[in-house]
Amino acid sequence: MMAGKFIAFEGGEGTGKSTQARLLTEYLQSKGISTVLTREPGGTAGAEAIRSLLLDPPGEGWGARAEALLFAAARSDHVEKLIRPGIAADKWVICDRFLDSSRAYQGGAGGVGDNAVLSLHEVGSDGLRPDLTILISVPPATIAARLAERDGDTSDAIGGRSAEYHAEVASTFLNLAKSEPDRFFEIDGDGTAKDVHQRVLAVLEPLLGAQT
Amino acid sequence: MMAGKFIAFEGGEGTGKSTQARLLTEYLQSKGISTVLTREPGGTAGAEAIRSLLLDPPGEGWGARAEALLFAAARSDHVEKLIRPGIAADKWVICDRFLDSSRAYQGGAGGVGDNAVLSLHEVGSDGLRPDLTILISVPPATIAARLAERDGDTSDAIGGRSAEYHAEVASTFLNLAKSEPDRFFEIDGDGTAKDVHQRVLAVLEPLLGAQT
Repeated sequence: MMAGKFIAFEGGEGTGKSTQARLLTEYLQSKGISTVLTREPGGTAGAEAIRSLLLDPPGEGWGARAEALLFAAARSDHVEKLIRPGIAADKWVICDRFLDSSRAYQGGAGGVGDNAVLSLHEVGSDGLRPDLTILISVPPATIAARLAERDGDTSDAIGGRSAEYHAEVASTFLNLAKSEPDRFFEIDGDGTAKDVHQRVLAVLEPLLGAQT
Repeated sequence: MMAGKFIAFEGGEGTGKSTQARLLTEYLQSKGISTVLTREPGGTAGAEAIRSLLLDPPGEGWGARAEALLFAAARSDHVEKLIRPGIAADKWVICDRFLDSSRAYQGGAGGVGDNAVLSLHEVGSDGLRPDLTILISVPPATIAARLAERDGDTSDAIGGRSAEYHAEVASTFLNLAKSEPDRFFEIDGDGTAKDVHQRVLAVLEPLLGAQT
Protein backbone atom coordinates (compact mmCIF):
# COMPACT_ATOMS: atom_id res chain seq x y z
CA MET A 1 0.00 0.00 0.00
CA MET A 2 1.47 3.34 -1.10
CA ALA A 3 1.00 6.54 0.89
CA GLY A 4 1.54 10.07 -0.37
CA LYS A 5 4.67 11.90 0.79
CA PHE A 6 5.80 15.48 0.52
CA ILE A 7 9.57 16.06 0.19
CA ALA A 8 11.11 19.53 -0.16
CA PHE A 9 14.62 20.47 -1.24
CA GLU A 10 16.02 23.65 0.27
CA GLY A 11 19.21 25.68 0.09
CA GLY A 12 20.67 28.86 -1.36
CA GLU A 13 21.35 29.65 -5.03
CA GLY A 14 23.70 27.20 -6.78
CA THR A 15 23.44 24.44 -4.19
CA GLY A 16 22.10 21.97 -6.75
CA LYS A 17 18.55 21.66 -5.37
CA SER A 18 16.82 21.55 -8.76
CA THR A 19 19.16 18.84 -10.07
CA GLN A 20 18.69 16.74 -6.94
CA ALA A 21 14.91 17.15 -7.03
CA ARG A 22 14.94 15.88 -10.63
CA LEU A 23 17.30 12.96 -9.89
CA LEU A 24 15.16 11.87 -6.94
CA THR A 25 12.01 12.07 -9.03
CA GLU A 26 13.58 9.90 -11.75
CA TYR A 27 14.74 7.40 -9.13
CA LEU A 28 11.29 7.13 -7.55
CA GLN A 29 9.64 6.74 -10.94
CA SER A 30 12.11 3.95 -11.80
CA LYS A 31 10.86 2.19 -8.65
CA GLY A 32 7.26 2.52 -9.84
CA ILE A 33 6.35 5.24 -7.35
CA SER A 34 3.95 7.84 -8.72
CA THR A 35 5.56 11.28 -8.29
CA VAL A 36 4.94 14.98 -8.96
CA LEU A 37 7.99 17.20 -9.47
CA THR A 38 7.28 20.85 -8.81
CA ARG A 39 8.94 24.08 -7.68
CA GLU A 40 8.41 27.33 -5.81
CA PRO A 41 7.58 30.00 -6.43
CA GLY A 42 5.41 28.41 -9.10
CA GLY A 43 3.92 25.03 -9.86
CA THR A 44 0.45 26.27 -10.86
CA ALA A 45 -0.68 28.85 -13.43
CA GLY A 46 -1.42 31.41 -10.70
CA ALA A 47 1.78 30.80 -8.76
CA GLU A 48 3.89 31.00 -11.93
CA ALA A 49 2.33 34.41 -12.67
CA ILE A 50 3.31 35.53 -9.15
CA ARG A 51 6.81 34.09 -9.75
CA SER A 52 7.22 36.48 -12.69
CA LEU A 53 6.27 39.43 -10.47
CA LEU A 54 8.75 38.31 -7.81
CA LEU A 55 11.76 37.65 -10.01
CA ASP A 56 11.21 40.57 -12.38
CA PRO A 57 9.33 43.15 -10.28
CA PRO A 58 7.43 46.06 -11.83
CA GLY A 59 8.42 49.54 -10.69
CA GLU A 60 11.13 49.95 -8.08
CA GLY A 61 10.91 46.40 -6.66
CA TRP A 62 9.15 44.87 -3.64
CA GLY A 63 9.78 45.60 -0.01
CA ALA A 64 10.55 42.52 2.08
CA ARG A 65 7.02 42.36 3.51
CA ALA A 66 5.20 42.59 0.18
CA GLU A 67 7.62 39.95 -1.08
CA ALA A 68 6.78 37.63 1.84
CA LEU A 69 3.05 38.09 1.15
CA LEU A 70 3.50 37.32 -2.55
CA PHE A 71 5.43 34.13 -1.77
CA ALA A 72 2.71 33.09 0.67
CA ALA A 73 0.01 33.78 -1.96
CA ALA A 74 1.84 31.70 -4.57
CA ARG A 75 2.33 28.92 -2.00
CA SER A 76 -1.35 28.96 -1.04
CA ASP A 77 -2.36 28.41 -4.68
CA HIS A 78 0.30 25.72 -5.12
CA VAL A 79 -0.68 23.84 -1.95
CA GLU A 80 -4.40 24.01 -2.69
CA LYS A 81 -4.28 23.01 -6.35
CA LEU A 82 -1.24 20.76 -6.71
CA ILE A 83 0.49 19.67 -3.50
CA ARG A 84 -2.47 18.60 -1.33
CA PRO A 85 -4.29 16.89 -4.23
CA GLY A 86 -1.03 15.06 -5.10
CA ILE A 87 -0.53 13.78 -1.55
CA ALA A 88 -4.21 12.84 -1.32
CA ALA A 89 -3.81 10.80 -4.52
CA ASP A 90 -0.98 8.83 -2.81
CA LYS A 91 1.76 10.44 -4.87
CA TRP A 92 5.16 11.56 -3.73
CA VAL A 93 5.33 15.33 -4.26
CA ILE A 94 8.93 16.52 -4.72
CA CYS A 95 9.24 20.28 -4.40
CA ASP A 96 12.21 22.47 -5.30
CA ARG A 97 11.94 25.04 -2.43
CA PHE A 98 9.00 25.46 -0.05
CA LEU A 99 8.13 27.33 3.17
CA ASP A 100 11.67 27.24 4.60
CA SER A 101 12.95 29.34 1.68
CA SER A 102 10.54 32.10 2.73
CA ARG A 103 11.72 31.71 6.34
CA ALA A 104 15.38 31.99 5.27
CA TYR A 105 15.07 34.70 2.59
CA GLN A 106 12.23 37.01 3.66
CA GLY A 107 12.07 36.00 7.32
CA GLY A 108 15.81 35.94 8.11
CA ALA A 109 17.77 37.85 5.44
CA GLY A 110 14.87 40.20 4.63
CA GLY A 111 14.16 40.99 8.27
CA VAL A 112 10.44 40.15 8.20
CA GLY A 113 10.92 37.64 11.03
CA ASP A 114 10.15 33.96 11.35
CA ASN A 115 6.87 34.37 13.26
CA ALA A 116 5.47 36.69 10.60
CA VAL A 117 6.37 34.29 7.78
CA LEU A 118 4.84 31.38 9.69
CA SER A 119 1.65 33.36 10.33
CA LEU A 120 1.26 34.04 6.59
CA HIS A 121 1.71 30.32 5.88
CA GLU A 122 -0.90 29.48 8.51
CA VAL A 123 -3.44 31.76 6.80
CA GLY A 124 -2.49 30.69 3.28
CA SER A 125 -1.92 26.95 3.64
CA ASP A 126 -2.97 25.87 7.17
CA GLY A 127 0.71 25.63 8.03
CA LEU A 128 1.40 22.55 5.87
CA ARG A 129 4.93 21.14 6.45
CA PRO A 130 6.81 18.64 4.26
CA ASP A 131 7.25 15.13 5.65
CA LEU A 132 10.94 15.61 5.04
CA THR A 133 13.03 18.63 4.09
CA ILE A 134 16.47 18.11 2.59
CA LEU A 135 18.78 21.06 3.09
CA ILE A 136 21.72 21.02 0.70
CA SER A 137 24.71 22.90 2.05
CA VAL A 138 27.64 23.89 -0.10
CA PRO A 139 30.68 26.03 0.86
CA PRO A 140 30.35 29.64 -0.41
CA ALA A 141 33.49 29.35 -2.59
CA THR A 142 32.04 26.31 -4.42
CA ILE A 143 28.74 28.13 -4.99
CA ALA A 144 30.53 31.18 -6.41
CA ALA A 145 32.41 28.94 -8.86
CA ARG A 146 29.18 27.15 -9.90
CA LEU A 147 27.22 30.37 -10.43
CA ALA A 148 30.09 31.79 -12.53
CA GLU A 149 29.86 28.71 -14.80
CA ARG A 150 26.16 29.18 -15.55
CA ASP A 151 25.60 30.54 -19.04
CA GLY A 152 24.72 34.20 -19.40
CA ASP A 153 23.23 36.47 -16.76
CA THR A 154 20.86 34.26 -14.83
CA SER A 155 20.57 36.51 -11.81
CA ASP A 156 17.08 37.73 -10.90
CA ALA A 157 15.76 40.24 -8.37
CA ILE A 158 16.36 37.82 -5.49
CA GLY A 159 19.36 35.76 -6.65
CA GLY A 160 21.18 38.98 -7.53
CA ARG A 161 21.19 40.34 -3.96
CA SER A 162 24.34 41.01 -1.94
CA ALA A 163 26.75 38.41 -0.57
CA GLU A 164 25.71 39.51 2.95
CA TYR A 165 22.06 38.77 2.14
CA HIS A 166 22.91 35.29 0.86
CA ALA A 167 25.16 34.59 3.87
CA GLU A 168 22.21 35.45 6.12
CA VAL A 169 20.00 33.09 4.05
CA ALA A 170 22.52 30.26 4.54
CA SER A 171 22.86 30.80 8.28
CA THR A 172 19.06 31.00 8.74
CA PHE A 173 18.66 27.70 6.87
CA LEU A 174 21.16 26.06 9.24
CA ASN A 175 19.34 27.40 12.29
CA LEU A 176 16.00 26.15 10.97
CA ALA A 177 17.49 22.69 10.37
CA LYS A 178 18.82 22.59 13.95
CA SER A 179 15.49 23.69 15.38
CA GLU A 180 13.50 20.91 13.66
CA PRO A 181 15.84 17.89 13.51
CA ASP A 182 13.02 15.39 12.93
CA ARG A 183 11.96 17.03 9.68
CA PHE A 184 15.23 18.45 8.35
CA PHE A 185 18.14 16.51 6.93
CA GLU A 186 21.24 18.48 6.05
CA ILE A 187 23.20 17.05 3.15
CA ASP A 188 26.70 17.96 1.98
CA GLY A 189 26.26 19.34 -1.57
CA ASP A 190 29.95 19.24 -2.50
CA GLY A 191 31.06 16.79 -5.22
CA THR A 192 29.24 15.53 -8.31
CA ALA A 193 25.46 15.46 -8.71
CA LYS A 194 25.70 11.64 -8.54
CA ASP A 195 27.58 11.78 -5.22
CA VAL A 196 24.97 14.09 -3.73
CA HIS A 197 22.13 11.94 -5.11
CA GLN A 198 23.53 8.93 -3.21
CA ARG A 199 23.48 10.99 0.00
CA VAL A 200 19.85 11.94 -0.69
CA LEU A 201 18.89 8.28 -1.17
CA ALA A 202 20.65 7.32 2.08
CA VAL A 203 18.53 9.87 3.93
CA LEU A 204 15.35 8.65 2.25
CA GLU A 205 16.00 4.94 2.85
CA PRO A 206 13.76 4.67 5.93
CA LEU A 207 10.84 6.25 4.07
CA LEU A 208 11.49 4.19 0.94
CA GLY A 209 11.89 0.94 2.85
CA ALA A 210 8.41 1.29 4.24
CA GLN A 211 6.97 1.68 0.74
CA THR A 212 8.68 -0.97 -1.41
CA MET B 1 -0.39 74.38 9.95
CA MET B 2 -1.53 71.47 7.76
CA ALA B 3 -1.31 67.85 8.89
CA GLY B 4 -1.55 64.78 6.65
CA LYS B 5 -4.78 62.79 6.74
CA PHE B 6 -5.79 59.43 5.37
CA ILE B 7 -9.43 59.05 4.26
CA ALA B 8 -10.80 55.82 2.77
CA PHE B 9 -14.06 55.27 0.87
CA GLU B 10 -15.62 51.84 1.25
CA GLY B 11 -18.67 50.00 0.01
CA GLY B 12 -19.76 47.35 -2.47
CA GLU B 13 -19.82 47.56 -6.27
CA GLY B 14 -21.88 50.41 -7.69
CA THR B 15 -22.13 52.43 -4.47
CA GLY B 16 -20.41 55.46 -6.01
CA LYS B 17 -17.14 55.30 -4.03
CA SER B 18 -14.90 56.27 -6.93
CA THR B 19 -17.05 59.26 -7.85
CA GLN B 20 -17.16 60.46 -4.25
CA ALA B 21 -13.41 60.02 -3.79
CA ARG B 22 -12.86 62.17 -6.87
CA LEU B 23 -15.38 64.84 -5.82
CA LEU B 24 -13.81 65.09 -2.37
CA THR B 25 -10.32 65.38 -3.87
CA GLU B 26 -11.48 68.20 -6.16
CA TYR B 27 -13.12 69.97 -3.22
CA LEU B 28 -10.00 69.73 -1.06
CA GLN B 29 -7.81 70.96 -3.89
CA SER B 30 -10.15 73.92 -4.42
CA LYS B 31 -9.49 74.77 -0.74
CA GLY B 32 -5.72 74.69 -1.36
CA ILE B 33 -5.20 71.38 0.46
CA SER B 34 -2.55 69.17 -1.10
CA THR B 35 -4.12 65.77 -1.86
CA VAL B 36 -3.32 62.39 -3.35
CA LEU B 37 -6.19 60.43 -4.93
CA THR B 38 -5.50 56.71 -5.14
CA ARG B 39 -7.26 53.35 -5.20
CA GLU B 40 -7.00 49.70 -4.16
CA PRO B 41 -5.99 47.27 -5.31
CA GLY B 42 -3.41 49.44 -7.06
CA GLY B 43 -1.90 52.89 -6.66
CA THR B 44 1.72 51.85 -7.33
CA ALA B 45 3.34 50.02 -10.25
CA GLY B 46 3.66 46.83 -8.20
CA ALA B 47 0.16 46.98 -6.74
CA GLU B 48 -1.38 47.66 -10.17
CA ALA B 49 0.36 44.52 -11.49
CA ILE B 50 -1.18 42.55 -8.61
CA ARG B 51 -4.56 44.17 -9.41
CA SER B 52 -4.40 42.64 -12.89
CA LEU B 53 -3.78 39.19 -11.40
CA LEU B 54 -6.71 39.64 -9.00
CA LEU B 55 -9.32 40.93 -11.44
CA ASP B 56 -8.29 38.70 -14.36
CA PRO B 57 -6.75 35.62 -12.71
CA PRO B 58 -4.54 33.17 -14.61
CA GLY B 59 -5.62 29.52 -14.60
CA GLU B 60 -8.74 28.53 -12.69
CA GLY B 61 -8.86 31.58 -10.39
CA TRP B 62 -7.67 32.23 -6.83
CA GLY B 63 -8.90 30.60 -3.67
CA ALA B 64 -10.09 33.04 -1.01
CA ARG B 65 -6.88 32.73 1.00
CA ALA B 66 -4.50 33.33 -1.90
CA GLU B 67 -6.73 36.27 -2.84
CA ALA B 68 -6.46 37.73 0.68
CA LEU B 69 -2.66 37.38 0.56
CA LEU B 70 -2.48 39.09 -2.84
CA PHE B 71 -4.59 42.02 -1.60
CA ALA B 72 -2.34 42.33 1.46
CA ALA B 73 0.77 42.28 -0.76
CA ALA B 74 -0.62 45.01 -3.01
CA ARG B 75 -1.61 47.04 0.08
CA SER B 76 1.85 46.67 1.61
CA ASP B 77 3.45 48.13 -1.53
CA HIS B 78 0.84 50.89 -1.71
CA VAL B 79 1.22 51.87 1.95
CA GLU B 80 5.02 51.82 1.87
CA LYS B 81 5.52 53.72 -1.37
CA LEU B 82 2.52 56.06 -1.67
CA ILE B 83 0.24 56.32 1.38
CA ARG B 84 2.75 56.72 4.21
CA PRO B 85 5.00 59.10 2.23
CA GLY B 86 1.92 61.16 1.31
CA ILE B 87 0.77 61.47 4.93
CA ALA B 88 4.35 62.24 6.03
CA ALA B 89 4.45 65.05 3.44
CA ASP B 90 1.33 66.56 5.10
CA LYS B 91 -0.98 65.62 2.25
CA TRP B 92 -4.52 64.30 2.44
CA VAL B 93 -4.51 60.82 0.96
CA ILE B 94 -7.95 59.88 -0.42
CA CYS B 95 -8.21 56.15 -1.14
CA ASP B 96 -10.93 54.35 -3.09
CA ARG B 97 -11.10 51.11 -0.99
CA PHE B 98 -8.60 50.02 1.67
CA LEU B 99 -8.26 47.37 4.40
CA ASP B 100 -11.97 47.16 5.16
CA SER B 101 -12.71 45.92 1.64
CA SER B 102 -10.44 42.93 2.34
CA ARG B 103 -12.24 42.40 5.65
CA ALA B 104 -15.65 42.47 3.93
CA TYR B 105 -14.82 40.56 0.72
CA GLN B 106 -12.15 37.97 1.63
CA GLY B 107 -12.65 38.00 5.41
CA GLY B 108 -16.45 37.94 5.51
CA ALA B 109 -17.89 36.83 2.17
CA GLY B 110 -14.83 34.72 1.27
CA GLY B 111 -14.75 32.99 4.65
CA VAL B 112 -11.10 33.73 5.45
CA GLY B 113 -12.12 35.42 8.70
CA ASP B 114 -11.49 38.87 10.10
CA ASN B 115 -8.58 37.90 12.37
CA ALA B 116 -6.70 36.32 9.49
CA VAL B 117 -7.16 39.39 7.28
CA LEU B 118 -6.05 41.68 10.11
CA SER B 119 -2.96 39.53 10.75
CA LEU B 120 -1.93 39.84 7.09
CA HIS B 121 -2.34 43.61 7.30
CA GLU B 122 -0.24 43.68 10.47
CA VAL B 123 2.61 41.88 8.70
CA GLY B 124 2.27 43.84 5.47
CA SER B 125 1.55 47.37 6.68
CA ASP B 126 1.97 47.47 10.48
CA GLY B 127 -1.82 47.57 10.73
CA LEU B 128 -2.21 51.12 9.35
CA ARG B 129 -5.80 52.41 9.66
CA PRO B 130 -7.36 55.43 7.93
CA ASP B 131 -8.11 58.47 10.08
CA LEU B 132 -11.62 58.23 8.74
CA THR B 133 -13.46 55.62 6.71
CA ILE B 134 -16.58 56.60 4.80
CA LEU B 135 -18.87 53.66 4.12
CA ILE B 136 -21.36 54.41 1.36
CA SER B 137 -24.50 52.31 1.62
CA VAL B 138 -27.01 51.98 -1.18
CA PRO B 139 -30.10 49.73 -1.34
CA PRO B 140 -29.48 46.58 -3.44
CA ALA B 141 -32.20 47.51 -5.98
CA THR B 142 -30.53 50.88 -6.67
CA ILE B 143 -27.15 49.18 -7.12
CA ALA B 144 -28.61 46.66 -9.56
CA ALA B 145 -30.08 49.52 -11.62
CA ARG B 146 -26.76 51.43 -11.60
CA LEU B 147 -24.68 48.41 -12.61
CA ALA B 148 -27.12 47.67 -15.46
CA GLU B 149 -26.57 51.21 -16.77
CA ARG B 150 -22.77 50.86 -16.98
CA ASP B 151 -21.60 50.42 -20.57
CA GLY B 152 -20.61 46.94 -21.69
CA ASP B 153 -19.54 44.04 -19.51
CA THR B 154 -17.54 45.65 -16.72
CA SER B 155 -17.73 42.69 -14.35
CA ASP B 156 -14.40 41.22 -13.22
CA ALA B 157 -13.46 38.09 -11.25
CA ILE B 158 -14.61 39.68 -7.99
CA GLY B 159 -17.41 42.03 -9.04
CA GLY B 160 -18.98 39.20 -11.03
CA ARG B 161 -19.58 36.95 -8.02
CA SER B 162 -23.02 35.83 -6.80
CA ALA B 163 -25.68 38.05 -5.25
CA GLU B 164 -25.24 36.04 -2.01
CA TYR B 165 -21.53 36.90 -1.97
CA HIS B 166 -22.23 40.61 -2.42
CA ALA B 167 -24.98 40.55 0.22
CA GLU B 168 -22.45 39.07 2.66
CA VAL B 169 -19.98 41.82 1.69
CA ALA B 170 -22.60 44.49 2.45
CA SER B 171 -23.55 43.01 5.82
CA THR B 172 -19.89 42.60 6.85
CA PHE B 173 -19.26 46.27 5.99
CA LEU B 174 -22.17 47.30 8.24
CA ASN B 175 -20.86 45.16 11.11
CA LEU B 176 -17.38 46.64 10.76
CA ALA B 177 -18.82 50.16 10.83
CA LYS B 178 -20.73 49.36 14.01
CA SER B 179 -17.68 47.84 15.68
CA GLU B 180 -15.49 50.94 15.11
CA PRO B 181 -17.84 53.93 15.34
CA ASP B 182 -15.02 56.43 15.95
CA ARG B 183 -13.39 55.68 12.60
CA PHE B 184 -16.36 54.71 10.41
CA PHE B 185 -19.03 57.03 9.06
CA GLU B 186 -21.87 55.43 7.18
CA ILE B 187 -23.35 57.62 4.45
CA ASP B 188 -26.54 57.15 2.50
CA GLY B 189 -25.47 56.74 -1.14
CA ASP B 190 -28.94 57.15 -2.63
CA GLY B 191 -29.60 60.25 -4.75
CA THR B 192 -27.35 62.23 -7.07
CA ALA B 193 -23.55 62.33 -6.77
CA LYS B 194 -23.88 65.95 -5.65
CA ASP B 195 -26.33 65.01 -2.86
CA VAL B 196 -23.97 62.34 -1.59
CA HIS B 197 -20.98 64.69 -1.86
CA GLN B 198 -22.75 67.13 0.48
CA ARG B 199 -23.20 64.32 3.01
CA VAL B 200 -19.48 63.48 2.74
CA LEU B 201 -18.55 67.12 3.39
CA ALA B 202 -20.82 67.21 6.43
CA VAL B 203 -19.01 64.23 7.90
CA LEU B 204 -15.63 65.78 7.16
CA GLU B 205 -16.46 69.20 8.58
CA PRO B 206 -14.77 68.60 11.97
CA LEU B 207 -11.52 67.51 10.28
CA LEU B 208 -11.71 70.34 7.74
CA GLY B 209 -12.51 72.95 10.34
CA ALA B 210 -9.28 72.19 12.14
CA GLN B 211 -7.28 72.70 8.95
CA THR B 212 -8.65 75.81 7.33
